[in-house]
Amino acid sequence: MNDSIRLPEGFRFAGMNCGIKPAKSDLAMIVVDKAANGFGVYTQNLVRAACIDWNRSLTPLNGVRGIVVNSGNANACTGAEGIANNKQMAQIAADSLAGIGLPTKAKQMFVLSTGVIGRQLPMSSLEQGIPKVVSHLQNDAGAFDSAANAILTTDKNRKIASRSWQVGNQSFTIAAMAKGAGMIGPNMATMLGVLVTDFPVASEQGQSMLQRVVDRSFNRISVEGHTSTNDAVILLAADSAPGIQSVVAHDEFECYLLELSIELAKKIPTDGEGADHLIEIRVLGTQSDVEAERIARTIALSNLVKTAVAGADPNWGRIVSAAGYSGVSFDVEQTSLTLNGTKVFERGSPVAFDNKAVSKSIKNAVLTQIDLIVGGGRGSATHWTSDLTVDYVKLNAEYTT
Amino acid sequence: MNDSIRLPEGFRFAGMNCGIKPAKSDLAMIVVDKAANGFGVYTQNLVRAACIDWNRSLTPLNGVRGIVVNSGNANACTGAEGIANNKQMAQIAADSLAGIGLPTKAKQMFVLSTGVIGRQLPMSSLEQGIPKVVSHLQNDAGAFDSAANAILTTDKNRKIASRSWQVGNQSFTIAAMAKGAGMIGPNMATMLGVLVTDFPVASEQGQSMLQRVVDRSFNRISVEGHTSTNDAVILLAADSAPGIQSVVAHDEFECYLLELSIELAKKIPTDGEGADHLIEIRVLGTQSDVEAERIARTIALSNLVKTAVAGADPNWGRIVSAAGYSGVSFDVEQTSLTLNGTKVFERGSPVAFDNKAVSKSIKNAVLTQIDLIVGGGRGSATHWTSDLTVDYVKLNAEYTT
Repeated sequence: MNDSIRLPEGFRFAGMNCGIKPAKSDLAMIVVDKAANGFGVYTQNLVRAACIDWNRSLTPLNGVRGIVVNSGNANACTGAEGIANNKQMAQIAADSLAGIGLPTKAKQMFVLSTGVIGRQLPMSSLEQGIPKVVSHLQNDAGAFDSAANAILTTDKNRKIASRSWQVGNQSFTIAAMAKGAGMIGPNMATMLGVLVTDFPVASEQGQSMLQRVVDRSFNRISVEGHTSTNDAVILLAADSAPGIQSVVAHDEFECYLLELSIELAKKIPTDGEGADHLIEIRVLGTQSDVEAERIARTIALSNLVKTAVAGADPNWGRIVSAAGYSGVSFDVEQTSLTLNGTKVFERGSPVAFDNKAVSKSIKNAVLTQIDLIVGGGRGSATHWTSDLTVDYVKLNAEYTT
Repeated sequence: MNDSIRLPEGFRFAGMNCGIKPAKSDLAMIVVDKAANGFGVYTQNLVRAACIDWNRSLTPLNGVRGIVVNSGNANACTGAEGIANNKQMAQIAADSLAGIGLPTKAKQMFVLSTGVIGRQLPMSSLEQGIPKVVSHLQNDAGAFDSAANAILTTDKNRKIASRSWQVGNQSFTIAAMAKGAGMIGPNMATMLGVLVTDFPVASEQGQSMLQRVVDRSFNRISVEGHTSTNDAVILLAADSAPGIQSVVAHDEFECYLLELSIELAKKIPTDGEGADHLIEIRVLGTQSDVEAERIARTIALSNLVKTAVAGADPNWGRIVSAAGYSGVSFDVEQTSLTLNGTKVFERGSPVAFDNKAVSKSIKNAVLTQIDLIVGGGRGSATHWTSDLTVDYVKLNAEYTT
């Protein structure tokens, strides 16, 4: 099942059900055996889960021991009780790890939660579950898979990927798991990403590197633009490796990290029930990348664009007009639009095109490609989103209770 | 059918089909007999229809003669040909009015278009239709109704309202029509509002007054936040009336104008096919009204909030977390939320409530009331939106062709 996944040395994984959800897996641990550094990029939502504030106060974390993750409960909007429960969750994890010979303090543990907002964590489930999950920790693909499954909520599939490469005659690996299917499902969903590597990343470099990578991968996807209370991407990296210091090796590592993050991020928009198309929006010709991203994101968040793709409708006016209200200034007379390779709008005027052929090209492929050129500037950005289908609404309109 | 509509003196109306749409009414005229002033508030979309640029260049318009409106074609993204066609439309209207004894220049006519983007106007239909619609101009409720019907696209119902009041022993009236059902339907839809009154509004006051009114009415509604290329609200007001100069009379007029505009605006979100609930979002306790509006709008644009209401799901975490990513700073510990009168979140912590009873209250009423208090500031705002239903997606995913 996981022929292709490679795991870095020095990490162990486990996942199981501890009773937060009725039957599905809901508790995961990711643990590092040796000295390591932890980095994190967190939600910008003002309303943050208790775990986010906990992790932020620790990041970057020298001597990180690992991550304890629960799904099924976000521990957000839970007040002082939620903060105490989060701390207790880290403490139980630390104590359990000490019990298997890995002396750990609570503040060496990141905590991730995802699930329903506004309910207190069932602490008795965690008190019983965490020691049990610790006893299952392994460095193998099956254990990695168990962890990757336990962090899911309404996802259809677990999302994992890995990269291995050589530096001189040393081999390094990044393995990653992600969770998120947009905010689909009756519960508030969350985007989580966990990246682990045996490549050494110094404390002072890792945080800005991870931010750069996330900005071009996990921050370039959207389903409905509803920033979660719990979004987080965490990187656990080795503290040192013999002979690795060169800037070039680090640049190479960042490229692999970005490649892997994009691969995982692109799995998210279409993994929700009710997403039929991955929409890739490329914007070119702005003054800056930030402007291009702003236009691409505005198009990605337009329900009219997303329903048009669901219906295989080459209704390009919706795309151009969405760009127009993005807040970025551009010259419509220098603007052209291509839909799945067919030019439909050129320098401010409509172009005659075969409506049926373009519709068919949308209908018959998972990927819909939107290319918007808004001038001669050097800015560009790519953003990925899903279409908006009848099933999406059905699923999200279901009762929480 | 229109027992309740009152019309101001000095205006005439007409509406009919001229062939832009296969069968439905698609051409309207609103004409003023005496000297009048015209004011307008227009879309902030960078991608603007030809009519918007035309109207903007004329506003405020002393000696306005009237408005010619077509539905079925937005004349947007149509380049130089579209600009020339818009001008020609105004010219035909002016010539036709001169033919019935109302000498008019093209630049005394506002033009409004709404419908599909990216197609050239069928000028022969307008050349034949405009003189015909001019010949039907009348000051009666039937003619007003015909005009109000002709400006519709995918609306289920025409939207009209009026207010009459006394100043001393003089009677004044505002009559108004609006068009818009969100951006629902296979075509790009638009919000149009036309307000006519025999109350005198001086050129130097009317524009800022209309902007204030629109900011608190038509700019406080959203369906999917897709600002159209063609949005416009136009006010035609008498130039003078004996004895009316007092500031008080003008303040009173502005109140009536606002009341009427809110009444019309609130009809828009639920008039699209597939909108079952009007959601009223009231935000209190911010530092400023602008902040409150920003939070309310962010909640209104959340597909997760809108689908929850469609499913009568009291999933309040979606509301609080949407407020959290609005970009407005507030203290979660000072934040409370009420759903249809039931407190569900108080000062940062969840409140136990009867989930089924709140669900029932959403299900059984057209109006869903969301009240969010985020602190002790004096800022407040109300925003109206619709829920997001399966039918909405079905309609918007249909082919344009």
